[in-house]
Amino acid sequence: MKIFLDELNYLLDAAGVLTGKDTAAYCLDQRRRYQGAALAVARPRSSTEVAAVVQLCARHGVAIVPQGGNTSLCGGATPDASGAALILSLERMNQVLEVDADNNTITVEAGAVLADVQAAARAANRLFPAEWAAAGSCRIGGALATNAGGVNVLRYGNMRELTLGLEVVLASGEIWNGLRGLRKDNTGYDLKQLFVGSEGTLGVITRAVLRLYPLPTAHATALVAVDDPTAAVDLLRGVQAAVGDRVTSFELISRPCFELLAKQCPNLPHPFSPLPEWAVLVELSDGGDSHVLTDQLAEVLHIMGCDHALLAQNSRQAKDFWRLREHIPEAQRREGVSIKHDISVPVGNIPAFLNECGHQLQLAFNDAVIIAFGHLGDGNLHYNVFRTDKTSALYADEPMVNDIVYSCVADHNGSISAEHGIGQLKRHHLAKYRNPLELALMKKIKQVFDPAQIMNPGKVFID
Amino acid sequence: MKIFLDELNYLLDAAGVLTGKDTAAYCLDQRRRYQGAALAVARPRSSTEVAAVVQLCARHGVAIVPQGGNTSLCGGATPDASGAALILSLERMNQVLEVDADNNTITVEAGAVLADVQAAARAANRLFPAEWAAAGSCRIGGALATNAGGVNVLRYGNMRELTLGLEVVLASGEIWNGLRGLRKDNTGYDLKQLFVGSEGTLGVITRAVLRLYPLPTAHATALVAVDDPTAAVDLLRGVQAAVGDRVTSFELISRPCFELLAKQCPNLPHPFSPLPEWAVLVELSDGGDSHVLTDQLAEVLHIMGCDHALLAQNSRQAKDFWRLREHIPEAQRREGVSIKHDISVPVGNIPAFLNECGHQLQLAFNDAVIIAFGHLGDGNLHYNVFRTDKTSALYADEPMVNDIVYSCVADHNGSISAEHGIGQLKRHHLAKYRNPLELALMKKIKQVFDPAQIMNPGKVFID
Repeated sequence: MKIFLDELNYLLDAAGVLTGKDTAAYCLDQRRRYQGAALAVARPRSSTEVAAVVQLCARHGVAIVPQGGNTSLCGGATPDASGAALILSLERMNQVLEVDADNNTITVEAGAVLADVQAAARAANRLFPAEWAAAGSCRIGGALATNAGGVNVLRYGNMRELTLGLEVVLASGEIWNGLRGLRKDNTGYDLKQLFVGSEGTLGVITRAVLRLYPLPTAHATALVAVDDPTAAVDLLRGVQAAVGDRVTSFELISRPCFELLAKQCPNLPHPFSPLPEWAVLVELSDGGDSHVLTDQLAEVLHIMGCDHALLAQNSRQAKDFWRLREHIPEAQRREGVSIKHDISVPVGNIPAFLNECGHQLQLAFNDAVIIAFGHLGDGNLHYNVFRTDKTSALYADEPMVNDIVYSCVADHNGSISAEHGIGQLKRHHLAKYRNPLELALMKKIKQVFDPAQIMNPGKVFID
Repeated sequence: MKIFLDELNYLLDAAGVLTGKDTAAYCLDQRRRYQGAALAVARPRSSTEVAAVVQLCARHGVAIVPQGGNTSLCGGATPDASGAALILSLERMNQVLEVDADNNTITVEAGAVLADVQAAARAANRLFPAEWAAAGSCRIGGALATNAGGVNVLRYGNMRELTLGLEVVLASGEIWNGLRGLRKDNTGYDLKQLFVGSEGTLGVITRAVLRLYPLPTAHATALVAVDDPTAAVDLLRGVQAAVGDRVTSFELISRPCFELLAKQCPNLPHPFSPLPEWAVLVELSDGGDSHVLTDQLAEVLHIMGCDHALLAQNSRQAKDFWRLREHIPEAQRREGVSIKHDISVPVGNIPAFLNECGHQLQLAFNDAVIIAFGHLGDGNLHYNVFRTDKTSALYADEPMVNDIVYSCVADHNGSISAEHGIGQLKRHHLAKYRNPLELALMKKIKQVFDPAQIMNPGKVFID
C-alpha cells in the first residue's frame, strides 16, 4: 500500500492526507458503536481532486468510505476494522457557491455544514428548511446520502424533496454533472434520485443544488397536552384543516420523556405540572406577524377543545419548548444505554403501533421503559427502549427488542428506518424486512454503478 | 402470432382483447402525429392479469406499449407502425382503492382518471393537487410515467413529489409491491423514483399511493398586467415574500396569446383593453374565506405597484380568467399548425431566455409568431412558434425552429422537456442535449430492468 499512499500524497496537498493517529476521529462513529480503522483519510479540495482520488482507489482496488460530518447514527460513514479502506472526507469542500434568490436555489459543496447553508439562505431572505439536532456539524453530502429528515419534513419534505441537482463522482472516477436548478425536468430517468439515500454506496456526492423557500417572518409555538396518540392525530388533522400548511412541525412527546428530562436535565424549564401522558409540540410558520399567528393558533386549539395548551408568548419561550424536545436524546444519553429505533408508519397507524408494540415489550421485559417521541406529522417516531434493571449487559437485549419493534413496524406497514438510513446498524434487518425482489433490484443497480464494489462496502447490504 | 393471440385470449376475458379496427383509437396519439399499429390491445382488470400478459409477451418476445388515457403530447403511449407490439391498456383498472384521511393518502389503480382521483380526495375533504388540461381523460399511470406537472407544481410539486408508493409489473412479469404510504422511508435505494418519469420503458405501473393535502377553502385569483418578464419574476418573489406558499399558481401570458384568443375564441370574456404586452395569472389558496384572501392579494398587488390588476370578485370570474389561460392551446389548434416546446429554465433566466430566443427566431423567420405562456413559477414555458406565411409545408421548419429553441434552452441551463416527457417526439433531441455519460447510465439501468428490450421500445432512447 506504500505505492498507493505515495500516489495519494502526490495527488493532494500536505493537509490533504492524514494517516496514523490523525485518522482516529474519523474512524469512530458518533454513537461510539463502530470503531473502525483506515489506511488514510483523504481530504480533497475540489471535485477534480475527488475524482483523482476515486480513480486511484479504483486502480488499486481500495475501498472508499465517503464521510461528511461523521454524524451518522447507523455507522454509515465509518470504515470497518480491517484498516484497508480509505476515508474520503469532504470537510474541506465546505463552500456555499451560489444563492440564486430569483430561482429560490442554493448551490453548495458537499462538505458545507448544514447550519452554514441555512445561514446563507437567511442572508438572502430565504429559508433552507432542513433542520435537525446535528445542524451545526453535519454536512450536506451526508444529509443527502442518508436522505435526512428532521423537524420540518411535514411541510417541506426530506432532503430528497429539497434537492434539484447533484454532481457526483462515480466509482469509475468520472464526474457526473447533474447540477441543474430546475423544478421541472422530464428528460429520461432521474439519476439523482438514486444517489440521494444511497449512503455512499453508488458514488460520492460532491455538489448540490437545493431548494429555497420564502423566509417565514411569523412563528407560533405551543406545547399541548393530549389524552393519547389518537387525540394527537386528530389534533394534527384539525389544525391542518384550519391553517393548512402553516403547520411546519408536529412533534409527539410521551410522559416518560418528560420524566427523563426532569431527572437528567433539571435546569431546563419544565412547564407542565402535573405531567401529561402525552403532549405535542406544534409549530406554525407564515409571513406576517407572530402575534397574529399565535392568536390564530390559540383560537384553533380552543375550538379543538385543548384545555391544557401552553402557548409560547415570545420567541424565547418558543425556544424553551423546543429545547425540551431537543434535549430528549441528551437526557437518554445521561440515563445510560438505550436501544434506539428510528421508525415510521402511516400516520393513522401510530396509535395502534404504540399500543401494540408497548404491550409486547412489557410482556417481554417487565422493566422496559419506552421513550417514544418524534415527528408525528410524518409518521416518524424515535422509539427507544431501556431497562431500569441495569444488571444486564450492554446491548444484550438488543436483538430481542429489535425483533419485537421491527415486527410490529412491519405489521403496521411501516419502515425500519425513517430518516437515519441503514448503514452498518440495520443492514441485517434490511435483509429481513425488505422483500427479496427489491433487494435483488437494489443489488443490480449497485452492480451497474460500482461493479468493483469499492464504494462504502459493508453498508446497506450484508454481502 | 396466432399462438400468442390465442394465449392472450385465454388469459383475459372477452372484453380484454381488442384486435383489428377496434385498436384504431389506441394507435393514434392525441396530437395526431404518430399513427401506429398494434398486434392487439390487452385490457387486463388486475395486477395479476397485467403480470400474466407481460409474462406472455416476455416468452414470445412481443414488445409492450403501456397506455393510460393516450393523452401523451410526445407520442409516448402509441406503438410504432410495424404492428408487432401489444398495447397494454390500463383503462379497466380505474378504481380509487382507498382514501386514508388520517394519513393524507389515496391509493389508486393506474387506470384511474385524474379527475376521479381529485373527486375522491375532495369527498374526504382533502386535495389531490395535480391539475392540468387533460384531467378528465388522462390516467394516473400515464401521469406517473411522464412525471406530469401542471398548474399547481409551484406549491405542490410534480407527480414525483406527490407519489409515496408504487406497484409495478416488471418486464420479467414479476410484481414489485412498493405500495407504501410513508413520508419517511430510508431503507436502501428508492426504486419508485426510477419508474416515475420512465415513460413505460422500465415496467408497467399498476397501482400507486399518492399524497393528499388539506383542502383549501379560500381562493384568490388575479390577472395582472406587467411590463415584461423581469417584472413578472419580481412580482412572483414579491407576492411570495408577502403570502408565502399560498401562491399555488403563477402563469405567464404574452400579448400574442391574448390576440390569438380574441381571434379564435371570441366568445370568451376578454377583460383587458388595451391588451398588455405581458400578464400573469396569480392564484392564491388557503383555509378560511375567499374574500379575506382576495383582499390580501389586492393589498399585495397595490403595494407592489401593479396598476393594471384585475381581481376576480367571485369564483365565476376566477373561472373566466382560468378559461383564458386554458384556451390558449385550443386557440392555437384553430389557428393552424404550430411547433411546440415544453421547456424549462431556472426562473431567474426566463427573461433572458425569452429575449434571446425570440430574437434568434425573428432573425431566422421574420414572420414567426411566438406563443409563449405557462408556469413561470416553476420556470416552465410552453414556447410555441408558428409562421403567418402559411405556404410552407407542414412542420417543414420544425428542425430549424427546434435547433434554435433547444440551443437557447441549453445556453440558459434549461431542459428540453419540462413536463411532457420525451416519448418519440424528442428522443433525438435527448440524445443531443443530455451528456453521453448520463445517457450511458440510463441505458445501463434500462438493461437491468428490461434486458430483452420489450418495454415501450422506440421511446426515450433512439436505439
